[in-house]
Amino acid sequence: MTPTPESLSPAQAREAFRTGLRAPTSGYAPGFAQANVLALPKDLAFDMLLFAQRNPKPCPVLGVLEPVQVTSGLLAGGDIRTDVPAYRVYRDGELVAEPDDVLGHWRDDLVTFLLGCSFTFETPLRRAGVPVRHLDLGVNVPMYRTARRCAPAGSLSGPLVVSMRPIPAHQVADAVRITSRYPGVHGAPVHVGNPAALEIEDLDSPDFGDAVDVPDGWIPVFWACGVTPQAAVMESKPELAISHSPGHMLVTDLPDAELQVP
Amino acid sequence: MTPTPESLSPAQAREAFRTGLRAPTSGYAPGFAQANVLALPKDLAFDMLLFAQRNPKPCPVLGVLEPVQVTSGLLAGGDIRTDVPAYRVYRDGELVAEPDDVLGHWRDDLVTFLLGCSFTFETPLRRAGVPVRHLDLGVNVPMYRTARRCAPAGSLSGPLVVSMRPIPAHQVADAVRITSRYPGVHGAPVHVGNPAALEIEDLDSPDFGDAVDVPDGWIPVFWACGVTPQAAVMESKPELAISHSPGHMLVTDLPDAELQVP
Repeated sequence: MTPTPESLSPAQAREAFRTGLRAPTSGYAPGFAQANVLALPKDLAFDMLLFAQRNPKPCPVLGVLEPVQVTSGLLAGGDIRTDVPAYRVYRDGELVAEPDDVLGHWRDDLVTFLLGCSFTFETPLRRAGVPVRHLDLGVNVPMYRTARRCAPAGSLSGPLVVSMRPIPAHQVADAVRITSRYPGVHGAPVHVGNPAALEIEDLDSPDFGDAVDVPDGWIPVFWACGVTPQAAVMESKPELAISHSPGHMLVTDLPDAELQVP
Repeated sequence: MTPTPESLSPAQAREAFRTGLRAPTSGYAPGFAQANVLALPKDLAFDMLLFAQRNPKPCPVLGVLEPVQVTSGLLAGGDIRTDVPAYRVYRDGELVAEPDDVLGHWRDDLVTFLLGCSFTFETPLRRAGVPVRHLDLGVNVPMYRTARRCAPAGSLSGPLVVSMRPIPAHQVADAVRITSRYPGVHGAPVHVGNPAALEIEDLDSPDFGDAVDVPDGWIPVFWACGVTPQAAVMESKPELAISHSPGHMLVTDLPDAELQVP
């Protein structure tokens, strides 16, 4: 019997990606947190960590790998250079490659940031009967650049990027309540309702991901998005930056339950 | 009428300290957070911020002043080099001065960390009828080095330092519940009861601050302490480090209420 994504442990999922599988990670190893990955030269690491400290909603830090370090308790027995299904390599702010591993691009001075991903709170939303529209439609979540600026830190500044999930009006309070219990994966919404207040001109034209409809009687709800730090880093054009490819996250050993606050 | 510490606004308190007043800050500008201060050369700043990220209970970051920056919204109109009542200056890990201002020691490459102080949650404890023994006795809180090690970060490692407040047994649950709502100022206790489990040999001989008795029927309760990062920094012997003098904190403009989580 072929193992299904749902049946794999985090370590088994990482092994599959390490040995050549290239696939979006939605649905893999449910119950364990997935992470945004961003590796930067050490000389930008303080600015990035300070940016995260000042903007905790878009940049919840789950862990940091120091120079030379390529594994940690979040990916026990794994290797950050091989265990993500697909990577993006940027040089001077330009995307130059989208490889399956980054062994050939790695440098010992890279510091790797692992940031929470809202995939984690979609499971408890669905368990509580709150629909997650993009999953029901089988597409990627829509993401938008907003006019809201993040707090700058050192050389880093940029716009807040948000993800949008339409929610039935009578369940908006539930969606707020449930996601607020997961601050480590973006937490409560940053905005409920009118997209124009964020200067999002057209919900049907997301800047990243796929459009989804907002049915009658549903409200667009916006959460801070893990693309935010990448947008800030790209504005600063570092000589080298390595990230996961959107939707192709690191599957960690961190149980979702450990990210829940009372 | 001479103004009392309780009647001063944070800005008025800072002005008094700036213009020569040297006094412990307990009781000044109640309702506003006070902060531990630690300024380090830029080349240690990433290690310090990462140490704080990995040890959030002893090192809750309220704010960071970048190189050249000497004020921020936390001390509006103020100056971090003059507005603390008393400073400590360390060179190569040795205490070399305890001046009223540090204008003569400052360097443009210093990064200043402002870390939460448990003074903030003592007010809601007392409002809920939970006694704060050291305040009732009019002494400093007792603090102890423990055998528990912090998670290291770069060049920084050190022991967890804790503060101890004895609490009547029937109010321990209240003390946990109330302080857990203030993660930005050390949050819930790290240990309840037997000091030997932390390898604290004698409660009557604190490593910092003053001893307090534990009355019959009361339990010693231990919270992570803001002295922890200073202990780690001192172990690494940086060429220069500037901190507040114990008990002589920065009085900030941050309302206590903003540090409270649901």
